[in-house]
Amino acid sequence: MEKNSTNNKPRKRIALDMDEVIADVTPKFLAYYEKDLGAPISKKDFSGKKIYQLPGAAHIRDYLHEPGFFADLPVMENSREVVQWLLGHYDIFVVSAAMEFRNSLADKRDWMQKHFPFIHWKNIVFCGDKSIVQADYMIDDHVKNLEKFNGKGLLYTASHNIAETRFARANNWLEVRAFFEKEMG
Amino acid sequence: MEKNSTNNKPRKRIALDMDEVIADVTPKFLAYYEKDLGAPISKKDFSGKKIYQLPGAAHIRDYLHEPGFFADLPVMENSREVVQWLLGHYDIFVVSAAMEFRNSLADKRDWMQKHFPFIHWKNIVFCGDKSIVQADYMIDDHVKNLEKFNGKGLLYTASHNIAETRFARANNWLEVRAFFEKEMG
Repeated sequence: MEKNSTNNKPRKRIALDMDEVIADVTPKFLAYYEKDLGAPISKKDFSGKKIYQLPGAAHIRDYLHEPGFFADLPVMENSREVVQWLLGHYDIFVVSAAMEFRNSLADKRDWMQKHFPFIHWKNIVFCGDKSIVQADYMIDDHVKNLEKFNGKGLLYTASHNIAETRFARANNWLEVRAFFEKEMG
Repeated sequence: MEKNSTNNKPRKRIALDMDEVIADVTPKFLAYYEKDLGAPISKKDFSGKKIYQLPGAAHIRDYLHEPGFFADLPVMENSREVVQWLLGHYDIFVVSAAMEFRNSLADKRDWMQKHFPFIHWKNIVFCGDKSIVQADYMIDDHVKNLEKFNGKGLLYTASHNIAETRFARANNWLEVRAFFEKEMG
């Protein structure tokens, strides 16, 4: 474990998810929906679920397998700045359950290099089941990942998790920052 | 944690390395050495080190970045059979420190699917630093990975680790099997 440069206490570790946490998948999903189903849709139309759980939209999940899908996702607002701030206090491992999607792996590696070059490749993990991950905190939009996690979970709000009440929640990256300011006391 | 089907005890988890443990990199390295330096070489010529630490051979490590390098590596003798046997007793996560090599990611995913299809993609992890991994056992040829590991390490013999004495060692996959037979008592 790395030492904190200022006070010699061991630094705690954060496991940070990619999709719907630092990488915004929603605009692309909305565009595919409109193109394929012929009608525009907004985020509130799939509140409580994934967009591909809507009638006629199941095929949208297949786009995740296409080369390039993850290459040009926009960065979630304020996430770069808050992650840079967090790096002054915590070790951060970006952990993405990418293994199902063979073609996503290189795209995700490139995306990290492009948008978060201050995260070393040593601190990137692509896995299938996040129960393998050892960390003190996990920031994730999937309840299934937080349920199996031994440390403190922070649920990042996404359409599919809005009804969940068991975890601390952040609706945006300024709330992520506020959560960790409180943790540090 | 999964339950063992026969006796309901929680199954212990093994983190299993790829290169030089289940995937044999050496034949390809030997071929590159001969092609580029004009003279054949054998494994004992780089005993105690990596082949690319030999004079004039530093560039051989660069081949690891090329697409396809990891795609056609031979399977280490007896590893398929022993891994299948281990799966009857343990949860296995294949954990490869592949993140440095952007082009290796899809090749390694495909290689696993081709040669170890009985390992689910949920149980594959590509990372940089293995200290993120939570497991009971780690089978690895790199001392640096075993040093940071909290569980029991089993060092798989490779040219670069032959002088190491701090860890239990397996010289081949039949010795891996014998090690775990002993662990199970």
